[in-house]
Amino acid sequence: MKRFLSFVLLACLWVGASAQQALGPGTGLVSPQINPDHTVTFRLHAPKARQVRLTGDFLPTRPVEIEMGGQKLVYDAPGVVDLKEGPGGVWEFTSAPLSGELYSYSLIVDGMRVMDPSNIYQIRDVATWTNVFTLSAEPGDPGWYYEVHDVPHGSVSHVWYESPVLDSRMRRLSVYTPAGYEGGTQRYPVLYLLHGSGGDEDAWTDLGRTAQILDNLIAEGKAKPMIVVMPNGVWFNQAAPGAAVNMFQPTFTNSRSQSTIEIEDSFPDVMAFVEKNYRVARGYANTAVAGLSMGGRQSCMLSLHYPRKFGYVGLFSGVAAPEGLEELIENTFAAQPRLYWVGCGKADGVMVNTRKFVDYCNAKGHPVTFYESEGGHTWRNWRVYLTEFAQQLFK
Amino acid sequence: MKRFLSFVLLACLWVGASAQQALGPGTGLVSPQINPDHTVTFRLHAPKARQVRLTGDFLPTRPVEIEMGGQKLVYDAPGVVDLKEGPGGVWEFTSAPLSGELYSYSLIVDGMRVMDPSNIYQIRDVATWTNVFTLSAEPGDPGWYYEVHDVPHGSVSHVWYESPVLDSRMRRLSVYTPAGYEGGTQRYPVLYLLHGSGGDEDAWTDLGRTAQILDNLIAEGKAKPMIVVMPNGVWFNQAAPGAAVNMFQPTFTNSRSQSTIEIEDSFPDVMAFVEKNYRVARGYANTAVAGLSMGGRQSCMLSLHYPRKFGYVGLFSGVAAPEGLEELIENTFAAQPRLYWVGCGKADGVMVNTRKFVDYCNAKGHPVTFYESEGGHTWRNWRVYLTEFAQQLFK
Repeated sequence: MKRFLSFVLLACLWVGASAQQALGPGTGLVSPQINPDHTVTFRLHAPKARQVRLTGDFLPTRPVEIEMGGQKLVYDAPGVVDLKEGPGGVWEFTSAPLSGELYSYSLIVDGMRVMDPSNIYQIRDVATWTNVFTLSAEPGDPGWYYEVHDVPHGSVSHVWYESPVLDSRMRRLSVYTPAGYEGGTQRYPVLYLLHGSGGDEDAWTDLGRTAQILDNLIAEGKAKPMIVVMPNGVWFNQAAPGAAVNMFQPTFTNSRSQSTIEIEDSFPDVMAFVEKNYRVARGYANTAVAGLSMGGRQSCMLSLHYPRKFGYVGLFSGVAAPEGLEELIENTFAAQPRLYWVGCGKADGVMVNTRKFVDYCNAKGHPVTFYESEGGHTWRNWRVYLTEFAQQLFK
Repeated sequence: MKRFLSFVLLACLWVGASAQQALGPGTGLVSPQINPDHTVTFRLHAPKARQVRLTGDFLPTRPVEIEMGGQKLVYDAPGVVDLKEGPGGVWEFTSAPLSGELYSYSLIVDGMRVMDPSNIYQIRDVATWTNVFTLSAEPGDPGWYYEVHDVPHGSVSHVWYESPVLDSRMRRLSVYTPAGYEGGTQRYPVLYLLHGSGGDEDAWTDLGRTAQILDNLIAEGKAKPMIVVMPNGVWFNQAAPGAAVNMFQPTFTNSRSQSTIEIEDSFPDVMAFVEKNYRVARGYANTAVAGLSMGGRQSCMLSLHYPRKFGYVGLFSGVAAPEGLEELIENTFAAQPRLYWVGCGKADGVMVNTRKFVDYCNAKGHPVTFYESEGGHTWRNWRVYLTEFAQQLFK
């Protein structure tokens, strides 16, 4: 035992060496600490800091004015609060009671944004890392669906397929297969789930919590077991950072503006791969497409170009403008989609176009389910939209 | 187009808001910047900082003395250097020319360890995040094998299996399947690859670069296409942080000391799942086990308990002490393993026991391949060991 401890110790020293410089040995800080009343306490050991602040999506937003193209715009930025220094150089802040949700935050030490060193849970969104935590306040609240519970779990695979349309380059996609898929023989319906501008095939699994949402909904009998395919929708990126050939820095990109290849041209490559390699139940009634923001527009275009492919369509904070697409829209609804679901937040800049699309469809008598939520163009909404949409699929 | 831009802008604002407080808009810093002479420049915009330092595994180590159990121990800690403040509050440091490798570093601002905000590439090791970058100096150097090249890529899946031995709880494992596995019919040999203390089923894929190493070796014809299975070797953890039921904080743990269930008891559950659900070529000549540190000891114990299961065994910076295992060792070598490979660094605290094990085997006339490297108990060595070991498998 003594012998074994000796190299455990060495390993600890190796990794802990630089961390100890910051934290000091044995500070044992817990941050974030979720309290019984659902307030959350954040702590940072920073004896040399002059100011420690916290910004997070659970704080009241503050209006920030920016100028762009000669226009003044006001948008709701995440709130910022001060932590208070206590004994031993430990700064602390306790939030108001929070409802069940996945929350993002980061700390600002003397003007510099840093991760909370006591919280290893952090997720990348495009090119920004933030700390995260989930809170389950009430049974069945959004936070509950984003947590891992003791239910059967599906698998998440990162696989490569060839896209002849996109230069025959290998491209990466993520696939959720439901619990029981391995070793089974059953065929499952499939949801193609598309990310937003600057995102990649990891976006829906990481910030989107797709596997947790599906695991929990399926375990409760609220969603049908299904395969979820999450491709990379940026035509010039093969894969997410770390899996791609270059160590690139992701940026918000309107991939459409830079390519003559439209999503409807390249998407059949994705579907061909999936239908060949997964036990997919084929056909209209077993195929759904949905996406957020840029992926919402892409899903809209896919539904319009392949009216008999997708029986279920979900547009989350993203639509195509109806102008010039009138004939395609007619054809799509003539094929009688089983669900054409549109979700958008009241404070979302996309709401104007979303309403225009929904109004157009309504005026033509095309059945569209419009889910109008609070909030804006945020993952918090997209996770809820997925939770709502998934329950209505393949039934 | 204008309409689309408006919500791209909103999305940028949402995510960028807090980042901009730290970086200022448009600083456009590149860090790390790999220079043509293979020096690397690091930059941080921190106008309010009084001191900015960098610690990384490419700097000369410094001896650090610690006391433990009344004993004074000296170990080699990663080096620390100062960045120099330049115009506009941008701090900078340029390294000496570096050889091809995957390097880890972090910044220390006024005593606080922080991630480099210009570098989204960061990897978690147990409970510590560090920034990483790879550098390819010479063709075929270690760094080259850790990068993603334009070669056929295998898949990495995170799947769940049931372990009746470990309370019938679902447990998570990672599986690398080589390019061509999907949609093929071929059976492949399998390498079971075990992590170290405090690690999890993500350790070998993330810091271990298993998929990149195997993709590159297979593409060069240096390794046989194989399946690599990376289970979670901590008996009381079901899964890595984020995939587990609890938001736990991983610690270095000698899992053996806390359980009466030995690895040889629970491992058949892993193999049963893999052999049922993957196209695995069975038998001794097609089955390998290897691991690092705690996983090296576990691999050793597995080879001793199942002498006819594993034709190839790799012990990376971890062995079982031979005392009391003499009979098992005899049985194992009586089964004539095709390769019994032991790797350890000269500066590794585990070297004492490793030599004892190797000397014991040599004295008994058992063929052991001993790979003695420079360095210590580090991922840098374990990646090299995997690269070396994988080339000798299934041939």
